[in-house]
Amino acid sequence: MLDSAQTLFIGVDGGGTGCRAAVGTLSDGVLAQADGGRANVASDTELAIENILETVYAAAEKAGIPRDTLHKAKAHLGLAGVMTSHDSARVASDMPFETTVVTDDRSTAVTGALGGQDGFLLSVGTGTIAAASTAGTFQYVGGWGFHVADQASGAWLGRAALERVLLCKDGVVEHTDLTHELFAKFDDDANAISTFSVSAKPGDYGTFAPDIVTGARAGDPWGVSIMTQGAEHLVGSLRALGFKTGDTLCLSGGLGPHYAAYLPPESLGARINSCGNALDGAFQLAKSLGALR
Amino acid sequence: MLDSAQTLFIGVDGGGTGCRAAVGTLSDGVLAQADGGRANVASDTELAIENILETVYAAAEKAGIPRDTLHKAKAHLGLAGVMTSHDSARVASDMPFETTVVTDDRSTAVTGALGGQDGFLLSVGTGTIAAASTAGTFQYVGGWGFHVADQASGAWLGRAALERVLLCKDGVVEHTDLTHELFAKFDDDANAISTFSVSAKPGDYGTFAPDIVTGARAGDPWGVSIMTQGAEHLVGSLRALGFKTGDTLCLSGGLGPHYAAYLPPESLGARINSCGNALDGAFQLAKSLGALR
Repeated sequence: MLDSAQTLFIGVDGGGTGCRAAVGTLSDGVLAQADGGRANVASDTELAIENILETVYAAAEKAGIPRDTLHKAKAHLGLAGVMTSHDSARVASDMPFETTVVTDDRSTAVTGALGGQDGFLLSVGTGTIAAASTAGTFQYVGGWGFHVADQASGAWLGRAALERVLLCKDGVVEHTDLTHELFAKFDDDANAISTFSVSAKPGDYGTFAPDIVTGARAGDPWGVSIMTQGAEHLVGSLRALGFKTGDTLCLSGGLGPHYAAYLPPESLGARINSCGNALDGAFQLAKSLGALR
Repeated sequence: MLDSAQTLFIGVDGGGTGCRAAVGTLSDGVLAQADGGRANVASDTELAIENILETVYAAAEKAGIPRDTLHKAKAHLGLAGVMTSHDSARVASDMPFETTVVTDDRSTAVTGALGGQDGFLLSVGTGTIAAASTAGTFQYVGGWGFHVADQASGAWLGRAALERVLLCKDGVVEHTDLTHELFAKFDDDANAISTFSVSAKPGDYGTFAPDIVTGARAGDPWGVSIMTQGAEHLVGSLRALGFKTGDTLCLSGGLGPHYAAYLPPESLGARINSCGNALDGAFQLAKSLGALR
């Protein structure tokens, strides 16, 4: 049970497929977590607010915290689709907590991955996040979406691979083991790739990323070349963020760690493993609201 | 009026926005043309067939040709969306003409552009067609659609430009006059580019191609570099199609002629202007059906 003198903290990580909430205190850390429905502010703000509240209440109940004490809590919500301060204010004003800070889900991801330290994050999964965290402020490179950004990501690798396969099929460039292997996934039918591409989402392209990682590791020339190209983008992103040799760097996401082999050694001196996820980051940022008081 | 001994020929060019039909004879060439509704076989075969027939009848009426003589005609239909021989047969079997050949709209475009000669076509507009025509047979490179092909096209240039603008905005690479100019079209707002990209169609990206062509011509380093990259793809496509120095080459489409400045001189020795369009090509192919008899 909760000591009534203790400040309650709430962290929320919300995205298009679901949200998660953590409730706890400074001394005990997270007391309980709960999962809930989707919470993308851009697609449906009303639903996001509803799902977030339900999920926070569920976490509080698990922790044995009465709902009517939550109005004294300090909360940090990291939500996908938050693009403007208007979005943040809209959601924050509907929360019944003492203090609510709403950000996009990148700052919570960065804080979680770096465990609250200053440093740099390259989170590479279906998409790409490159970020710097310095004394509680965040800087980003990219994050503009698959169609015009997300270089080095799984979706980017997969789409580049299919483009390459078709160039091989047409005889413009030479097949490698990797392009043969990927073409075989479409029964060597170029029309099937074309049809796939019409409705393919970033996640669909991303399903080919593991093959590319494996092919590159086995020395496939095209595989190595595309991973190198992705790594060059990541190095450029770190440079733009002010990274210097010796700074803390976390490579996270399904693909991040795989790029280590293609990054220059001076980037990897102070490499750390990911400390935690975006929910950890949200809870950590909520706790820092207490410290600021 | 038509001499009843003369064979009638029908050419049709059909696509997603409309179709055109030409009716004529060997000696007189095209007697009349008509425009009609959309005729993309992939999206709606029934509607395509209906619109094609209506348009042919309209052209025949203009030429003073009684509808009931059309059953003796020989027709070539070049239709967008024809991917398989099954598609061709399905449409051909519903046509009331003596002979009907149905192909995709690339062979009619190639035949029209080359005026029926053997040679090579680089048609670069919103998309890219690279083709070789040799003694009535056609070979292609690409044509797999914007998401996984169409390198060098207007859509490809435009998307690459927006990606570049965002890298400049993020400080990963340096702005040039051209990237500044394109960014200004979005009020220097990266979120506006991101939002645009979510629903942008190839044609939407293609609207930026004229700026890129102009910027490159003025010597903008990034503009020159992306046009050079597009030209390298076109050269690779010609090579894959078996192009040799001195072979006839037609550069057509809104962008094709602009690539001349970036292609190696040995590609341009026997360059011709585009002789005609896909409707001309369809009519020409219909006439060759008479010759084959």
